[in-house]
Amino acid sequence: MTRVYNFGAGPAMLPIEVMEKARSEFLDYQGVGASIIEISHRSEEFDAVINETDRLLFELANIPDNYKILYVHGGAQMQFSAVPMNLIARNPEKKAAYVESGNFAKLAIKEAIRYGKISVVASSETSNYDRIPELEMAEVDQKSSYLYITSNNTIYGTRWQQFPSTDNIPLVADMTSEFLSRELDINQFGIIFAGLQKNLGPAGLALVIIREDLLDYALPETPNLLTYRTYAEKHSLSNTNNTFAIYMMKLVLEWLKDHGGVTALELQNETKAALIYDAIDTSSFYLGTAEVIYRSTMNVTFNLAENGLLDKFLSQAHAQGLYALKGHRNVGGVRASIYNAMPTAGCQALVNFMKEFEKNHA
Amino acid sequence: MTRVYNFGAGPAMLPIEVMEKARSEFLDYQGVGASIIEISHRSEEFDAVINETDRLLFELANIPDNYKILYVHGGAQMQFSAVPMNLIARNPEKKAAYVESGNFAKLAIKEAIRYGKISVVASSETSNYDRIPELEMAEVDQKSSYLYITSNNTIYGTRWQQFPSTDNIPLVADMTSEFLSRELDINQFGIIFAGLQKNLGPAGLALVIIREDLLDYALPETPNLLTYRTYAEKHSLSNTNNTFAIYMMKLVLEWLKDHGGVTALELQNETKAALIYDAIDTSSFYLGTAEVIYRSTMNVTFNLAENGLLDKFLSQAHAQGLYALKGHRNVGGVRASIYNAMPTAGCQALVNFMKEFEKNHA
Repeated sequence: MTRVYNFGAGPAMLPIEVMEKARSEFLDYQGVGASIIEISHRSEEFDAVINETDRLLFELANIPDNYKILYVHGGAQMQFSAVPMNLIARNPEKKAAYVESGNFAKLAIKEAIRYGKISVVASSETSNYDRIPELEMAEVDQKSSYLYITSNNTIYGTRWQQFPSTDNIPLVADMTSEFLSRELDINQFGIIFAGLQKNLGPAGLALVIIREDLLDYALPETPNLLTYRTYAEKHSLSNTNNTFAIYMMKLVLEWLKDHGGVTALELQNETKAALIYDAIDTSSFYLGTAEVIYRSTMNVTFNLAENGLLDKFLSQAHAQGLYALKGHRNVGGVRASIYNAMPTAGCQALVNFMKEFEKNHA
Repeated sequence: MTRVYNFGAGPAMLPIEVMEKARSEFLDYQGVGASIIEISHRSEEFDAVINETDRLLFELANIPDNYKILYVHGGAQMQFSAVPMNLIARNPEKKAAYVESGNFAKLAIKEAIRYGKISVVASSETSNYDRIPELEMAEVDQKSSYLYITSNNTIYGTRWQQFPSTDNIPLVADMTSEFLSRELDINQFGIIFAGLQKNLGPAGLALVIIREDLLDYALPETPNLLTYRTYAEKHSLSNTNNTFAIYMMKLVLEWLKDHGGVTALELQNETKAALIYDAIDTSSFYLGTAEVIYRSTMNVTFNLAENGLLDKFLSQAHAQGLYALKGHRNVGGVRASIYNAMPTAGCQALVNFMKEFEKNHA
């Protein structure tokens, strides 16, 4: 078996140790005689899995006690509905402020409009989201039920380097493509959510971290299984949850802890990203697409100066085991998604390929 | 490794051939160099998976061309919200009729009340759901947007032997615990849905089969990812779907086809259930809890005449590799869930144990 370096944006590569562990117990979980996916979500074995997942998240993300961890069906985009349904009525005027820093923010806005009065308080759409737009907090209505941002923009390769101080307005952050890749002060946020399939596990589930005082504003039409209070009260087991995804996330968290936790991974992520950004910046053959000061460490986007060479670049990379480097259609070019699970050696292999390709085609 | 006979109600056992196949390609899907859970839901590899899943479902369930197959986030209970949100406005009076044949029907009713005027047109609650209640179609308001039933009641071990003729009112059926276990005329139904985790795959996703003319009645507050039209238009890939669950369902469907399809499995299921029901009926030591004419072939429920022996029965069964036989707390006693994946040998092993236990304790 040959495993490739998989630069796909998500569902993304998982650590090989995690995959091997899952495979080793796929037919018989810890001597039960059945797989973890074949036993009840209310069994003592699964109970131990979800409790340990909680514990590792509290520890690794340094989550304060006044926050709840929820595992919510449907991935990050289901949260585009769940966030306004659960939070827009915090103020009876049902207003919320959104920062439009990319395509997923735009989709979140489109969805939120069903439930209240949405203000786009900053947008970088006119420059095709090549930066995080400037946000003037003075222009945000103080009656906003929340302020919404996308912390890392997968498609465009940008991220918030610092997060805004929002005072009494809860800050809601879609962190799908970077949660646990960098240290955070959770206290800055009212809600953090992340689909699992980029940095945390397989697809289909979202991790939601919510400050307890925000649990009780759901609109009456909110489906029971999109109501945060339901998840908080029933330990995310009001119905049968995606037990495989929670189990896989636990393995990913154990791997993260074994590798030094978020502090160590953040350093490694910076090193990995710097390797590729240096290769871009020291060449006129490659052109970064994101404004330098907003560059992401998770998704590195660039173009070839001579666009006609792109297909050749991608196919030769693929042939060398550098998989899924094609940029999103909204940007074009190349995108290297280098989440926690991507080893430094994978980034080095990409850089070596870039230099070789440049030498042969410049 | 010793695999047990797993009688759990769900997440339930999957065919060993399916589990072994999934394990064999868990780290490297068909030579891609990555797992199916690590690659894009928009990759050609996953596209082939979802297309083949569709094709097998159309073939095995004999689904007519005027129906759509949707893979919807959140399992069957998310459908308790999605069905009324998508269908209750079919008639502007927003009425729907529900048959309350068990706990899951009750939960579906509780959820539907958020969205319209719900009539419970039949209920067997007073006899603790030991039967399917008598339904008089003459008493169903002809302006009902739909009539809702639970085709098989997992907790109570009952099922509809025939389905009601509802004329112009679309019949909606929760078939979570029996879909593909018996032959059906899909034309009798407007919507069939089933959480995967009993008979079709791992937990977290629902299969929804919907007649095309019912796709366009969603309430304006329906979240995009609970809107059936969204799934129908985007081939269930509007966002990143639960790719693992779809992949596993495909393997289950291939297994089903290899074993003769629904016709062959239905015969086997009847044989399996008859083995256990005969053991109950030929003994005064065991007492069936469901009315005989409504007995399910998927979930066999019974009590011990001497209730004080129950714990001993369950622990001795467990010690012999007969796993998860404890009945649901609403019924007590014993429940043997014997979905498609349970071999006849498992049912025979249970019957042998029952006879032995009776001999030692009668």
